[in-house]
Amino acid sequence: MTDGIRVWAPRAAHVELRLGEDTLAMTRTEDGWWDRPGLVVEPGTDYGYLVDGEGPFPDPRSRRQPSGVHGLSRTVDASAHQWADARWTGRQLAGSVIYELHIGTFTAEGTFDAAAARLDHLVSIGVDFVEILPVNAFNGTHNWGYDGVLWYAVHEGYGGPAGYQRFVDACHVAGLGVIQDVVYNHLGPSGNYLPKFGPYLTDGPGNTWGSSVNLDGPDSDTVRRYILDNALMWLGEYHVDGLRLDAVHALVDSRATHLLEEMAGEVAALSAAVGRPLTLIAESDLNDPTLVTPREANGFGLDAQWSDDFHHAVHVALTGETTGYYADFEPLAALEKVLTGGFFHDGTFSSFRERIHGRRIDTDRMPTWRLVVANQNHDQIGNRAIGDRLSAQLDAGQLAIAAAVTLLGPFTPMLFQGEEWGASTPWQFFTSHPEPELGKATAEGRIAEFARMGWDPDIVPDPQDPATFQNSKLDWSETDGSDHERILAFYRALGVLRRERPEFTDPRFGSIRVDVDEADRWLVLHRGDSAVVLNFSSSERSVPVPAGSVLLGFTASGENVSAPLNGRLSVPAHSVVVLG
Amino acid sequence: MTDGIRVWAPRAAHVELRLGEDTLAMTRTEDGWWDRPGLVVEPGTDYGYLVDGEGPFPDPRSRRQPSGVHGLSRTVDASAHQWADARWTGRQLAGSVIYELHIGTFTAEGTFDAAAARLDHLVSIGVDFVEILPVNAFNGTHNWGYDGVLWYAVHEGYGGPAGYQRFVDACHVAGLGVIQDVVYNHLGPSGNYLPKFGPYLTDGPGNTWGSSVNLDGPDSDTVRRYILDNALMWLGEYHVDGLRLDAVHALVDSRATHLLEEMAGEVAALSAAVGRPLTLIAESDLNDPTLVTPREANGFGLDAQWSDDFHHAVHVALTGETTGYYADFEPLAALEKVLTGGFFHDGTFSSFRERIHGRRIDTDRMPTWRLVVANQNHDQIGNRAIGDRLSAQLDAGQLAIAAAVTLLGPFTPMLFQGEEWGASTPWQFFTSHPEPELGKATAEGRIAEFARMGWDPDIVPDPQDPATFQNSKLDWSETDGSDHERILAFYRALGVLRRERPEFTDPRFGSIRVDVDEADRWLVLHRGDSAVVLNFSSSERSVPVPAGSVLLGFTASGENVSAPLNGRLSVPAHSVVVLG
Repeated sequence: MTDGIRVWAPRAAHVELRLGEDTLAMTRTEDGWWDRPGLVVEPGTDYGYLVDGEGPFPDPRSRRQPSGVHGLSRTVDASAHQWADARWTGRQLAGSVIYELHIGTFTAEGTFDAAAARLDHLVSIGVDFVEILPVNAFNGTHNWGYDGVLWYAVHEGYGGPAGYQRFVDACHVAGLGVIQDVVYNHLGPSGNYLPKFGPYLTDGPGNTWGSSVNLDGPDSDTVRRYILDNALMWLGEYHVDGLRLDAVHALVDSRATHLLEEMAGEVAALSAAVGRPLTLIAESDLNDPTLVTPREANGFGLDAQWSDDFHHAVHVALTGETTGYYADFEPLAALEKVLTGGFFHDGTFSSFRERIHGRRIDTDRMPTWRLVVANQNHDQIGNRAIGDRLSAQLDAGQLAIAAAVTLLGPFTPMLFQGEEWGASTPWQFFTSHPEPELGKATAEGRIAEFARMGWDPDIVPDPQDPATFQNSKLDWSETDGSDHERILAFYRALGVLRRERPEFTDPRFGSIRVDVDEADRWLVLHRGDSAVVLNFSSSERSVPVPAGSVLLGFTASGENVSAPLNGRLSVPAHSVVVLG
Repeated sequence: MTDGIRVWAPRAAHVELRLGEDTLAMTRTEDGWWDRPGLVVEPGTDYGYLVDGEGPFPDPRSRRQPSGVHGLSRTVDASAHQWADARWTGRQLAGSVIYELHIGTFTAEGTFDAAAARLDHLVSIGVDFVEILPVNAFNGTHNWGYDGVLWYAVHEGYGGPAGYQRFVDACHVAGLGVIQDVVYNHLGPSGNYLPKFGPYLTDGPGNTWGSSVNLDGPDSDTVRRYILDNALMWLGEYHVDGLRLDAVHALVDSRATHLLEEMAGEVAALSAAVGRPLTLIAESDLNDPTLVTPREANGFGLDAQWSDDFHHAVHVALTGETTGYYADFEPLAALEKVLTGGFFHDGTFSSFRERIHGRRIDTDRMPTWRLVVANQNHDQIGNRAIGDRLSAQLDAGQLAIAAAVTLLGPFTPMLFQGEEWGASTPWQFFTSHPEPELGKATAEGRIAEFARMGWDPDIVPDPQDPATFQNSKLDWSETDGSDHERILAFYRALGVLRRERPEFTDPRFGSIRVDVDEADRWLVLHRGDSAVVLNFSSSERSVPVPAGSVLLGFTASGENVSAPLNGRLSVPAHSVVVLG
């Protein structure tokens, strides 16, 4: 990894270093890097670079931006932190539960230290990994994190690099792994000075969020190194256990070796060097098993990828919503297909995409945990017009169904902060762009987008309104409320069941069998000798079940569930019964 | 897993349970299992089975044999042990160092508890996994372990099941993983009552050590279950982290799904259930990459396999021995090929086998750590006529060469107990068969075998002589001796270097480059920007080297090594210099 007073600017005629009041000439070295031989800079020094007289700009590899993304960078002594996790040997993804959280809204304070104080809660519900939304520097005080610009710097408002080190350490001491969400497919709209330094971005067509990153054009070797070194920084220097790679379908790379395969190889090397598992998870819209096929078998060698199809199938089964990309998921058979095959779109026609989509998973070989699934996540909640969770439209029994099919289903479950008690707080799209034009454009664009879909513009929250951010914070006092408490207890019980009954983490697709009744709207998920009976309908159902006693039940009404009789089980409306 | 008072005897007309003074009839249930409904047996109860009036025989799944392999079995309360390793999240093989030890000779006492008291020593030399020779029940007081018969019982002399639990616990608390050597390809010559119960063995041609196990004949489903459940017992109930599968080339299985692939699938499922990595390592004579190719890529999905070719190449380069299977390894180029390709025999003619042997590893994809290598191990030492270690014929500098190429080479290193201080104690073939005929046959067979190769029968140790066992115990007082101390310090320094310099654990074959001079007998192993310079010759050599300073050096004579000058390094006879 390249740190310190050294910067890549291959097409610049001259580069200068701004250090306090001084402006120092730099020397061009090999491959377009600029250096200042003999210069020693203490930790805590502010600096920036002038490129062909313009600037100073922050260092593309800045570790700290104490005055924001437009200000000077500050050198950091990474070794100042005394790591307390020497006995941490890492955690594998297989069999694990992930918990997605956003530092700014997980607690009232919105800091790493405040989040660390809540780790006991996560342990108590059986969480194995904390996955945190991007923490690299962005402009403004609060943001989901996908408007980040300086990939190596940790947002000051969360606690900066030192706060991050304390957080990772606290997680490891609590027995939790840390997965960091990272964005390598675009840069945020404010504070991106990379083009001043070099050809980091392509001139060609961009993606939804901005220009594409230059992965295969001239000078792209060093751009790839910029990404790869960043991945290694989190995993190596910051002791992070895994990365969630944002929207990998937007990484445009025509090379014979895709960036993701290269990354998997480098991360595997680091994993061997540090002696603990390091996990790469792709957010992917491709439904392509190649991403998680081992490199030895001609895949990219990532460990896992998201399956949004699971979310859509569960969401539609519970809410009945069938607009947009939900259209193809209407029958319960869609959920059956997802549970037994991983993807719904596996070479089938996607009406939303108006084309054939996805590819079949080799279910004889691929382990189920390579798919990370959620019934709610930051995107699926926050990208709704009003950022409403499932709890806003479902009763407690339906929330329990979502929980059971996620946590007792065959895939790697990911919970979204507050889901475990059916939090009533929304999670809305919020920004804090200081630039008035950018703020206005963001807000108007958002509201117009939902107006086109028929939403009353007055009810779509203004992302720039500070209240939108405040409203999205968890209300921890809720966990004492009666239905919330009941849901939380159910999540805890599901966590215990996962550990006690190996059939629920069995990674073989062959271990899964599903019975479904479209008319009566019930589904039985068989895992080994256990069965998860889900009644999606609003009436009691008599469901044929295998022999077994009731391990766990959750009914919408709170009534007790009865045991099976003569091979059938009476399941109240909107209820879950687990037999084993 | 099937425990308790239940036994498989598919072809028996009647089975009885011997319990104290009582003989109780058992009831045949489905698939040839025999049961005694309603019977509750306390832990600590002695029992056995009579099959068609013969017996009592010990339970094939016995957990304890307090009176030896011919006596009654005793029930065990596995839950009596309070595990102290709740925070243990497992350890991955990538980047790890294994240490092979034999409980009976590792310490003077020869018990699990005595071995546990030496774990600090292992931690101090950078060991990650302890691999212990088979501990399941065998007849007699001492044995390498490959004459075992009751695969589920732990040898009483070592401390039995409770001692085993304490040992695994102590390893985990010390941060060490445990790999258990298990033998599924044959049964020992004494105490094997399996044929009394069912068709565990084949009638067909056996292997070197006895009858083959029935993996694909009639009734073999339950025989496979017997093996698979045993693997799961060690990994699950005993918290073990990995298994070393003895001589898998002797597992004869014609099924579409090989036993090893089935095992890999079941172990992966258990790994997900317990939430920690579980490792399967094959001892294989096949040089077949398929064993360690992921199941998703049509392989068996084992994690790693031994590469004896590495041993042979190192051994020949150091000793000059070229008899038997060492013949093809004469030039230093053999070591170069092993270091860069993993196998020497990769489709080449093996003069020892008189046929083409092995298959090329896909070095673009397979990580190097999938090969477990050693410069000495129990077999390569103990199967020599007099069980002499390398230290008996090499000087300290040559031992340092063996250490450096193993620990700084690309593969997963395995050390053999005492190697780290160049122990002068031999490790000889020893047995303690109580049956006089068996003891005599073993001893005479052994001596005759080496006499045929030209050894004086008088110097080949008698395996049945208790002194042969005693002589093979480590002498821990040696570690204070001067050359021993110097070697031990070198092993420790190599361990530190592995952790400090990621190039030494880089799992990519592409990261390896080797220069070799056959005439001058030196070899330079390049790992990234570092270089391991090995002078095998007995004269000083001037070796062309890359720029770099001396990280570590070890000379036979004890003199200091000089720094490179003008791209060349003067390397004393029998010395190692590591540059970086």
